[in-house]
Amino acid sequence: MSSLSRELVFLILQFLDEEKFKETVHKLEQESGFYFNMRYFEEAVVAGEWDDVERYLSGFTKVDDNRYSMKIFFEIRKQKYLEALDRQDRAKAVEILVKDLKVFASFNDELYKEITSLLTLDNFRDNEQLSKYGDTKSARNIMLLELRKLIEANPLFRDKLSFPALKLSRLRTLINQSLNWQHQLCKNPRPNPDIKTLFVDHTCGPVATNGMPRVPL
Amino acid sequence: MSSLSRELVFLILQFLDEEKFKETVHKLEQESGFYFNMRYFEEAVVAGEWDDVERYLSGFTKVDDNRYSMKIFFEIRKQKYLEALDRQDRAKAVEILVKDLKVFASFNDELYKEITSLLTLDNFRDNEQLSKYGDTKSARNIMLLELRKLIEANPLFRDKLSFPALKLSRLRTLINQSLNWQHQLCKNPRPNPDIKTLFVDHTCGPVATNGMPRVPL
Amino acid sequence: MSSLSRELVFLILQFLDEEKFKETVHKLEQESGFYFNMRYFEEAVVAGEWDDVERYLSGFTKVDDNRYSMKIFFEIRKQKYLEALDRQDRAKAVEILVKDLKVFASFNDELYKEITSLLTLDNFRDNEQLSKYGDTKSARNIMLLELRKLIEANPLFRDKLSFPALKLSRLRTLINQSLNWQHQLCKNPRPNPDIKTLFVDHTCGPVATNGMPRVPL
Amino acid sequence: MSSLSRELVFLILQFLDEEKFKETVHKLEQESGFYFNMRYFEEAVVAGEWDDVERYLSGFTKVDDNRYSMKIFFEIRKQKYLEALDRQDRAKAVEILVKDLKVFASFNDELYKEITSLLTLDNFRDNEQLSKYGDTKSARNIMLLELRKLIEANPLFRDKLSFPALKLSRLRTLINQSLNWQHQLCKNPRPNPDIKTLFVDHTCGPVATNGMPRVPL
Ligand SMILES: [Zn+2]
Ligand SMILES: [Zn+2]
Ligand SMILES: [Zn+2]
Ligand SMILES: [Zn+2]
Repeated sequence: MSSLSRELVFLILQFLDEEKFKETVHKLEQESGFYFNMRYFEEAVVAGEWDDVERYLSGFTKVDDNRYSMKIFFEIRKQKYLEALDRQDRAKAVEILVKDLKVFASFNDELYKEITSLLTLDNFRDNEQLSKYGDTKSARNIMLLELRKLIEANPLFRDKLSFPALKLSRLRTLINQSLNWQHQLCKNPRPNPDIKTLFVDHTCGPVATNGMPRVPL
Repeated sequence: MSSLSRELVFLILQFLDEEKFKETVHKLEQESGFYFNMRYFEEAVVAGEWDDVERYLSGFTKVDDNRYSMKIFFEIRKQKYLEALDRQDRAKAVEILVKDLKVFASFNDELYKEITSLLTLDNFRDNEQLSKYGDTKSARNIMLLELRKLIEANPLFRDKLSFPALKLSRLRTLINQSLNWQHQLCKNPRPNPDIKTLFVDHTCGPVATNGMPRVPL
Repeated sequence: MSSLSRELVFLILQFLDEEKFKETVHKLEQESGFYFNMRYFEEAVVAGEWDDVERYLSGFTKVDDNRYSMKIFFEIRKQKYLEALDRQDRAKAVEILVKDLKVFASFNDELYKEITSLLTLDNFRDNEQLSKYGDTKSARNIMLLELRKLIEANPLFRDKLSFPALKLSRLRTLINQSLNWQHQLCKNPRPNPDIKTLFVDHTCGPVATNGMPRVPL
Repeated sequence: MSSLSRELVFLILQFLDEEKFKETVHKLEQESGFYFNMRYFEEAVVAGEWDDVERYLSGFTKVDDNRYSMKIFFEIRKQKYLEALDRQDRAKAVEILVKDLKVFASFNDELYKEITSLLTLDNFRDNEQLSKYGDTKSARNIMLLELRKLIEANPLFRDKLSFPALKLSRLRTLINQSLNWQHQLCKNPRPNPDIKTLFVDHTCGPVATNGMPRVPL
């Protein structure tokens, strides 16, 4: 994608945000992979919306891209697993173990077995390394600090963490300029032409006086 | 939203589609409620992606908007319910009954009780009215014919079922026009100016000859 | 089974009870069908041990033996069903509906549908006829009063509700008499013979004086 | 319990068996702990009736009585666990791990962790030591051979594995002898007295001729 096309995506993101198409904004951030919205990510983590969290991340990196990415996914899935254990939902915990955490077994089999064995404890805090795990809320917040560091250090997220500085409604401004351009090509330009559509180029009708178009956008 | 803003959304939808940001396209269709993509809807129904189906619909109508909408949601949830019964997942079936179908009880209590009583049959096809229900695939296709009719007859979907006729990449064309406009304002316009960004307006530097901008979009 | 064999079963029941073989006692009551232990039955009902309750009953009657029996099983299964609903375990409730209560549908289809429709209420007490249902404990006690009446009125339980009046350890007494009989047949009976086994008949050895056997049971 | 009381239990077991009170027989074997019915045990193992298997065993030994007993329970629970894994019921498998197998962790923590980690395999036969595990039926039969050896070697089962040799219906024979004894005490014994009950001692009425009682048992 050319550099200007890429910029157009940013202009669209700004437009969608201004128009409050919230889910569309984050979906486009994800599908384009151009901008990682840390605030949105943090909200999803704090809310424990793990599916959303992983889906969003997947627009920017995969588990095995580098060791930062691996750690990011590992931390998230471990948290999801511990929360399932904490609400005594062992069936769900096993599912997470097998579907989400298994990928890490090939990198650290001992760790995977250790995590698996938490299943059999009444309270995983009985495991020495987890003895300081508090409640869900505090654990998510502690993880979030770690995730933020990992994302900021991850080369794949470099340059994707800040949104370009733009004047308000930049896309609308450009569209207005395009309308000006269309009118400026009119042979018999009217003053204050009423532009009714963006779908086809404007042309002033025969009876006309010169003037800038009224931009109704 | 003004008429031109509305048109801008369509131009963005076209752009997103051309750039293959598929999920973003459908999310914007839903969040704007401007265009109901029947093909996407049909695919989701045929695939039995009921959550996606309902989420998409929710951008255009609610259960109690009118009798067409009510019937649309009823048919979908009944199908979801019958499929749960068909795979002997009674726990899920009861959940659907209580979470999804209950809203219809206040409109037709007898029907709701009748549907509830299907729970206790080994095969819901033993109910006379369902004796012709075939397999999942054929049942979804039959329902789809009905849904299409209901949507087409539903006033809330009027004018939302066809996408406006547009030349290819209309948004890009307009952006190019805006760049032309910017350049045309240059005091010392160069020929073939190299426009590097959409984020701020272009101005030709001091050493320049006249010419149209090279549009690299 | 002859009348005396039947009496022997009662003597064994007394023996097992005196020796504290509690489960064996109730299993023999059930398998013989000679004595219905109301106290045991009541304890099982109050404890909500529905499997034990039905298994025990099955030694005496089946659902369709008469209208009393039908009502007994219906009340028990309805209670089991309502308790599942009350703890929000709808999956279990449906299972009870299909496995346990369905047999009653052929006798009263309207009632069965009414019961089925309770599934969809947040609280079955919203059904007018169940509005006075209190908590589990009180509901079990109220049902128990009803069950006791039904059992007492049920011809199949007639004569099975009271245990015959017996002197303590009647079976042991008879066994001692049998040993006396064996010894009395001895040609050279010793006084105070030491009887070592019940497995084969006793005979005094050659050196002997007359006397009653010492009964060491 | 005296030696003759113990023998009386065996006579009752024979009676119950002859009268086909099957469940009562095994319940009395269990509650008395006098006779371990290997055939019954084997049937329950082959049928995978693990609750029955453990309940029956509990009449004779507890997990930590000795190393044979420990191995017996371990083998049974491991089999139950593997079968749950084999039918992909991981929720049940975890439950077995936590409720049934955990007791062995304190004796062999490594082994327990190894067993726990089977949870995460798609097929536990991927574990080298279980690679020869066939289907359920053959696995149960192989285990049964092992269980039989462990039970036969277990001192707690010594002398409980064979039922004493008895003539048919020994208890009835003794009861008949007791009736003879009662009649023999009659002051005016009739011939062929009709004995109507075991509940109280017989006495011939006043008009009588000598004779042995007719034993109607
Ligand atoms: Zn014009
Ligand atoms: Zn210029
Ligand atoms: Zn003797
Ligand atoms: Zn007599």
